[in-house]
Amino acid sequence: MEYRIEKDTMGEVKVPADKLWGAQTERSRNNFKIGAPASMPLEIVYGFAYLKKAAAYTNCELGVLPVEKRDLIAKVCDEILVGKHDDQFPLVIWQTGSGTQSNMNVNEVIANRAHQLAGKTIGDGDKTIQPNDDVNKSQSSNDTFPTGMHIAAYTKIVKTTIPGVKQLRNTLKKKSEEFKNVVKIGRTHLMDATPLTLGQEFSGYVSQLDHGLKALENTLDHLKELALGGTAVGTGLNTPKGYDKRVAEYIAEFTGLPFITAPNKFEALAAHDAIVESHGALKQIAVSLNKIANDIRMMASGPRSGIGEIIIPANEPGSSIMPGKVNPTQCEALTMVCAQVMGNDVAITVGGTQGHYELNVFKPVMAANILESAQLIGDACVSFDVNCASGIEPNHAVIKELLNNSLMLVTALNTKIGYYKAAEIANTAHKNGTTLKEEAINLGYVSAEDYDEWVKPEDMVGSLK
Amino acid sequence: MEYRIEKDTMGEVKVPADKLWGAQTERSRNNFKIGAPASMPLEIVYGFAYLKKAAAYTNCELGVLPVEKRDLIAKVCDEILVGKHDDQFPLVIWQTGSGTQSNMNVNEVIANRAHQLAGKTIGDGDKTIQPNDDVNKSQSSNDTFPTGMHIAAYTKIVKTTIPGVKQLRNTLKKKSEEFKNVVKIGRTHLMDATPLTLGQEFSGYVSQLDHGLKALENTLDHLKELALGGTAVGTGLNTPKGYDKRVAEYIAEFTGLPFITAPNKFEALAAHDAIVESHGALKQIAVSLNKIANDIRMMASGPRSGIGEIIIPANEPGSSIMPGKVNPTQCEALTMVCAQVMGNDVAITVGGTQGHYELNVFKPVMAANILESAQLIGDACVSFDVNCASGIEPNHAVIKELLNNSLMLVTALNTKIGYYKAAEIANTAHKNGTTLKEEAINLGYVSAEDYDEWVKPEDMVGSLK
Amino acid sequence: MEYRIEKDTMGEVKVPADKLWGAQTERSRNNFKIGAPASMPLEIVYGFAYLKKAAAYTNCELGVLPVEKRDLIAKVCDEILVGKHDDQFPLVIWQTGSGTQSNMNVNEVIANRAHQLAGKTIGDGDKTIQPNDDVNKSQSSNDTFPTGMHIAAYTKIVKTTIPGVKQLRNTLKKKSEEFKNVVKIGRTHLMDATPLTLGQEFSGYVSQLDHGLKALENTLDHLKELALGGTAVGTGLNTPKGYDKRVAEYIAEFTGLPFITAPNKFEALAAHDAIVESHGALKQIAVSLNKIANDIRMMASGPRSGIGEIIIPANEPGSSIMPGKVNPTQCEALTMVCAQVMGNDVAITVGGTQGHYELNVFKPVMAANILESAQLIGDACVSFDVNCASGIEPNHAVIKELLNNSLMLVTALNTKIGYYKAAEIANTAHKNGTTLKEEAINLGYVSAEDYDEWVKPEDMVGSLK
Amino acid sequence: MEYRIEKDTMGEVKVPADKLWGAQTERSRNNFKIGAPASMPLEIVYGFAYLKKAAAYTNCELGVLPVEKRDLIAKVCDEILVGKHDDQFPLVIWQTGSGTQSNMNVNEVIANRAHQLAGKTIGDGDKTIQPNDDVNKSQSSNDTFPTGMHIAAYTKIVKTTIPGVKQLRNTLKKKSEEFKNVVKIGRTHLMDATPLTLGQEFSGYVSQLDHGLKALENTLDHLKELALGGTAVGTGLNTPKGYDKRVAEYIAEFTGLPFITAPNKFEALAAHDAIVESHGALKQIAVSLNKIANDIRMMASGPRSGIGEIIIPANEPGSSIMPGKVNPTQCEALTMVCAQVMGNDVAITVGGTQGHYELNVFKPVMAANILESAQLIGDACVSFDVNCASGIEPNHAVIKELLNNSLMLVTALNTKIGYYKAAEIANTAHKNGTTLKEEAINLGYVSAEDYDEWVKPEDMVGSLK
Repeated sequence: MEYRIEKDTMGEVKVPADKLWGAQTERSRNNFKIGAPASMPLEIVYGFAYLKKAAAYTNCELGVLPVEKRDLIAKVCDEILVGKHDDQFPLVIWQTGSGTQSNMNVNEVIANRAHQLAGKTIGDGDKTIQPNDDVNKSQSSNDTFPTGMHIAAYTKIVKTTIPGVKQLRNTLKKKSEEFKNVVKIGRTHLMDATPLTLGQEFSGYVSQLDHGLKALENTLDHLKELALGGTAVGTGLNTPKGYDKRVAEYIAEFTGLPFITAPNKFEALAAHDAIVESHGALKQIAVSLNKIANDIRMMASGPRSGIGEIIIPANEPGSSIMPGKVNPTQCEALTMVCAQVMGNDVAITVGGTQGHYELNVFKPVMAANILESAQLIGDACVSFDVNCASGIEPNHAVIKELLNNSLMLVTALNTKIGYYKAAEIANTAHKNGTTLKEEAINLGYVSAEDYDEWVKPEDMVGSLK
Repeated sequence: MEYRIEKDTMGEVKVPADKLWGAQTERSRNNFKIGAPASMPLEIVYGFAYLKKAAAYTNCELGVLPVEKRDLIAKVCDEILVGKHDDQFPLVIWQTGSGTQSNMNVNEVIANRAHQLAGKTIGDGDKTIQPNDDVNKSQSSNDTFPTGMHIAAYTKIVKTTIPGVKQLRNTLKKKSEEFKNVVKIGRTHLMDATPLTLGQEFSGYVSQLDHGLKALENTLDHLKELALGGTAVGTGLNTPKGYDKRVAEYIAEFTGLPFITAPNKFEALAAHDAIVESHGALKQIAVSLNKIANDIRMMASGPRSGIGEIIIPANEPGSSIMPGKVNPTQCEALTMVCAQVMGNDVAITVGGTQGHYELNVFKPVMAANILESAQLIGDACVSFDVNCASGIEPNHAVIKELLNNSLMLVTALNTKIGYYKAAEIANTAHKNGTTLKEEAINLGYVSAEDYDEWVKPEDMVGSLK
Repeated sequence: MEYRIEKDTMGEVKVPADKLWGAQTERSRNNFKIGAPASMPLEIVYGFAYLKKAAAYTNCELGVLPVEKRDLIAKVCDEILVGKHDDQFPLVIWQTGSGTQSNMNVNEVIANRAHQLAGKTIGDGDKTIQPNDDVNKSQSSNDTFPTGMHIAAYTKIVKTTIPGVKQLRNTLKKKSEEFKNVVKIGRTHLMDATPLTLGQEFSGYVSQLDHGLKALENTLDHLKELALGGTAVGTGLNTPKGYDKRVAEYIAEFTGLPFITAPNKFEALAAHDAIVESHGALKQIAVSLNKIANDIRMMASGPRSGIGEIIIPANEPGSSIMPGKVNPTQCEALTMVCAQVMGNDVAITVGGTQGHYELNVFKPVMAANILESAQLIGDACVSFDVNCASGIEPNHAVIKELLNNSLMLVTALNTKIGYYKAAEIANTAHKNGTTLKEEAINLGYVSAEDYDEWVKPEDMVGSLK
Repeated sequence: MEYRIEKDTMGEVKVPADKLWGAQTERSRNNFKIGAPASMPLEIVYGFAYLKKAAAYTNCELGVLPVEKRDLIAKVCDEILVGKHDDQFPLVIWQTGSGTQSNMNVNEVIANRAHQLAGKTIGDGDKTIQPNDDVNKSQSSNDTFPTGMHIAAYTKIVKTTIPGVKQLRNTLKKKSEEFKNVVKIGRTHLMDATPLTLGQEFSGYVSQLDHGLKALENTLDHLKELALGGTAVGTGLNTPKGYDKRVAEYIAEFTGLPFITAPNKFEALAAHDAIVESHGALKQIAVSLNKIANDIRMMASGPRSGIGEIIIPANEPGSSIMPGKVNPTQCEALTMVCAQVMGNDVAITVGGTQGHYELNVFKPVMAANILESAQLIGDACVSFDVNCASGIEPNHAVIKELLNNSLMLVTALNTKIGYYKAAEIANTAHKNGTTLKEEAINLGYVSAEDYDEWVKPEDMVGSLK
């Protein structure tokens, strides 16, 4: 491979000749061979591209960067944002905890690419634009990385997670309405209980997701706060007056999202509670989704020796050995995502606790985990919706049979003959393998007419309407 | 010990003669010998007392319970709420997951005590009030237990957690103002960085807690929703019309807190995402507190071989072997609480995922964990405030010495001579053990006058003001 | 209340006159009002009693403590160990993270009680025995607390956890043998699969617990290492020569358990990986138990609209509103315990990561969590065994019906006619609601005789025998 | 793009013409668009390649597969194992929880590639080898996937994790010996304590890792058990007699690792406690590494306003804004890995709890998490070793200064003048800012000669030698 020489304050480094990155990126590549290469999420890089462009505009506006440099920087950022340089960011999550090296990776790529855009050859002559003094002007890794991760996480949540969850929520809502008259046996403790409608069951899922979406949206106020302008320790050293507010406005403009400058920059560098907070809501949604997916696979179990109250789409052969088997695979993918999100929550929590003084140095691991969770939940909801939820149908014959068998219809008699006599009827029917009606009459507690009048499953589901 | 005979639908049970509980409580005592006795939190019992009274009032108002029964029930509830019967609730967390047995414990105690209040002897004659048919009227364990746990958790959060966190927050705010002119060395990656004021550092803590309090308050809308009225499976079977809204109004009136009936009872029984949500915010506050406590103990470390920038109160001898040792014990208690809260979050998350069909049967473990976390955070914040935070003082001599030694003041030169030359000055001073000023002049990059003009720590902290 | 004056190196403190504790205990009571009083587990106190007695014997043997003092100390320790002074240990978990104050609590109680045993009145005259110089001789909180917690955790695991898990394991083993000929439908993905015996299913549970027990026993080698002899920082300062090995021998003798002195005292004070390790195994057992309990409640679900393949004991009325309902309450208690143990694992993990330099100051929270988990698992296994597992019976009629209905018996045809034709038979029978045999013949793939010869559920379960 | 038609039991599917996979892989690609493509770890694919080859050999040996088919299958497996077909496995973790689709992906690639190796064109004529009937013979996804994941996890642990941890352990051991005479101040509660040597401090780290390695090795006995031979539900249906033991022997032979057939196949399919167990040990090692990395960065903190007792290598510029800054970046990468491993532990725990009946369907998520943790710990230990630990040097001047300043040397006087007088000396010196010796003499407790004789730091570190 061919190399060129790049320099930083520690000296010279050989860099692959065809790459845009510089000395510090190359040092990091060599010093952090941990896990798969290039694991730092590209979403973070794009977040950086937005902020570098915004910083250039703000610096220019505030008189500390010439227009030509601004335009060169902005042009490279735009190239990065359309994915043109995705292969120029080879660093891993497991680097310095401030993400300094990824900040420098972006600075170096912008500087070298700007040199090319200025019509020169990388490595030839002085850099047209300096990575530290120009691209990083009025910035520090300590405020850029958290800014990049907030841009990335916020964007992922509003563009992937929320739409995905809403899509599933809307399907469940539609199903809830479709199924509103399908009376079925209820189950508590996994045991037969009093009836409800399948639509009511689904309405519970809708309510869970509505609450989860609200909880997630509640966290966005914190997540939209950007650290940029705090520079090294939160004081804003080496930034021109008014920089922090203006740069956030530019970021809001470029992204089309309501970012603002963090009112307190010391928190914004030293703690990432906003990530903890938003991920807490993602975890809550995972908890909800786990319940929903579990219910659906239990209700769809069978086809002959399970519950079998609903039918879910058969998307693929379910077994490499058992012919004709169909499995609730979307439920499985979704609940595996939920397990991952619960684990990610702990990784983020642990990282979040360990800020020291003016800096939290678990930024990359926190960023990577929230981005993964946000992506997985959004994608898995869409997959579950398209390939499972939207095709759910009741198995009316099974539902009816299980409903009519149930001993828990006896509960309707509580208000007529009292809990104790009702229990006696149910226990006797259970023991004898008979019906409630038979035993109600045998025991002399209820007449046949009253029984038919009082014990109607369809009347037992509507008390709250 | 003397016993009397109590009965339930399964038959007779011997109960200690001097106890108010009945057959089902006694069965549970015998069947669940797991961990310490009476571990079910009393706060849950009090939550039940509120709701049993509210149910009696609502049932009476809606015509299904006589006034005399209402008043007897209410009277016992009032006795429970003043702590008169604390020793009548012997059950453990580790019982049925719907908390049925604790609901029955309350029902039985109320029924038997009402019998006494009616001038009779327990066990003599028919019960004046039936535990199932009267005390539990229009209720199920499945809606009462989650109602009781929401009342308990909400109350604990607004009466213990939030005031405790606010008390600490206010002290930190006061300290932040007191210390606003104390310029000190900043630290990032635990390494010397550019200066800031001690007040700015503390302002970050205040901002963390402000965000945490807001996050916690955001969750209360979900937590204030009560399941009561859903009865067995969420349909409200066996409740009179209008019952659910009315009973929530009574609970709001009796507790003085803004409880409402849950718009969706199916969710309210089958999922406890509200507990997951509120505890997520408690965990976030724990994350914040952990950072704050860590900073304080590191800054207070020494007295001679640590950082030593602040002095914390000496409350007790610190060592049984090292005479004269004083330790940051409040920081330790607080961070241990944080560790517990992080663990509790996982217990609650796991419990929250495992609802099946119409019921989540991890209610007691979820309730116990959120109550513990809410209590511990509130108490630990007060303890930390009173015994540590409010007594923090700067050690001005140390702060000044560490500040003036620092090589990172060189950052002020970036905008004057560029990052690379500034780095050369710092590296040379580090290598030679000299001062920045010496090397700045030696290297010929800055004159003595310019150095003094440009490198003023007190000017490096105020850029954002 | 009456008080007496006690002193420590910081001055005088008022202590309730009827209590044996001294100044430092009282300071801690006042400075750490966090959570319920006296939350520090008594097991830790008993661990201390063993080690204080052992230290006294060793100190005496090595010539640094007179026999009379040794005997007085030992006598009080014996009193503590029989529970005579349980009310003298009022401190909480949430104190200093080294447990210094609980060490001093024990030292003070021993000193004051020894004064009484010497025929004197507490507070009168010089203490017969000094808490720091005599009771704590050759010790530090930093080595005593971890020693106490290892004694407590080891004892709890071998006396409560392991016997409890084994008791359940043995019942499951017995059931596995009882059920060895009960052929039933298998289920994978919750869906019907090829048959196995109920005994085989239970043998999987036995194997899980056997592996779990082995994993737990593997950890005991680390847990049996005692820190005692390391004193303040692990160097053994102020201990007589040979003390560490000898004192561990005395502890082993007094407890009857194979404790040894930790080969490396620096680890033993600064890290509690042994607790992390043992709790990791407890968590693994919780994972196993969760699976077992889930299976049992699903198989027992019904009685009429669930799976219903097994019958579990009905121990209590299951519902306060649904008469005659019986629930898998022991499964619920057990899985709640599992959720708690998973949470405790995170609390312990977080605590375990945060040792600094020569000391980990999350000792009490780690100790409390492992003791809780060890107790709960042991107790819950016994409760589950006695009240559920040992009474499990197959519901032969249901098992037979579900087995014979199953389409997955078709798998037996794979090796005869190939996966694709077998799948066609199953899919056709599913679509038409017919039997496999009918469609196998209709499709012309198998004759009636061959079908009967090839598809025998009882022949499908024994391939590994 | 060009396509060809592939078929499975559900019908025809269009597959990219240049790909080796078949219908079921393509269905999975379309049905599970969750997260990044091809996230299923290649290590799992290689595990499959070993087991498919072993199954072919065993099937042939036991008379159910012709030699030619065996050899074709084996040849493709060998190609897979040298990485020749890495781009033929496009599936994601978030698929069916049994990994059926990845099993079929391997079956399909082997069948199609074998067709090529047999000199034919994919899609032309009958497949030379059938994916289900030949490649998958005597197998099910339910036993192959757990076998593949055990092979992958075991291999990763013994080839990456253990060597990495050992390499770091050996460096720390070497440093421990190098530093055995470097007496320094000890610190407990972050506060000055009695002295020890830097070598002793490092010996604690060595002991932690030794215990961690032992704990990890203890888990390998469980992890080496292979499910293969259990087929669909653990009964071994459709396997020839003796198959399970023989196939494990082949796998052991091909991998050179001591795999055995699982004694209980029902556990091996339905529970993955072995993964839980091994990951528990990985988490324990993460806990240890976190402590070690924290200590090192705190001891290296400064350079002028921190602790500064050790010097770590400067590998890269530490700050994009603060010139000349060097940070403990390897400690940060390592502790971020630790946070991730702690999170992964919860994901695995949650997955592990959720087996149902004969199958756990969280296999892929459990496999992916253990592989990530095992890789990250191994890599991070090597990176930390090479770039940090092996270059650690004491800063003798700082160490000496901090040691001599310390007030905790007073502890040496406990055994001479008692704890109380020693405390008075320390407190007075602290208050007056004087030395211990001055105050010892002033207070009249010790003569100058005795002080010099009794208080020698170098004598305070060796009591246990």
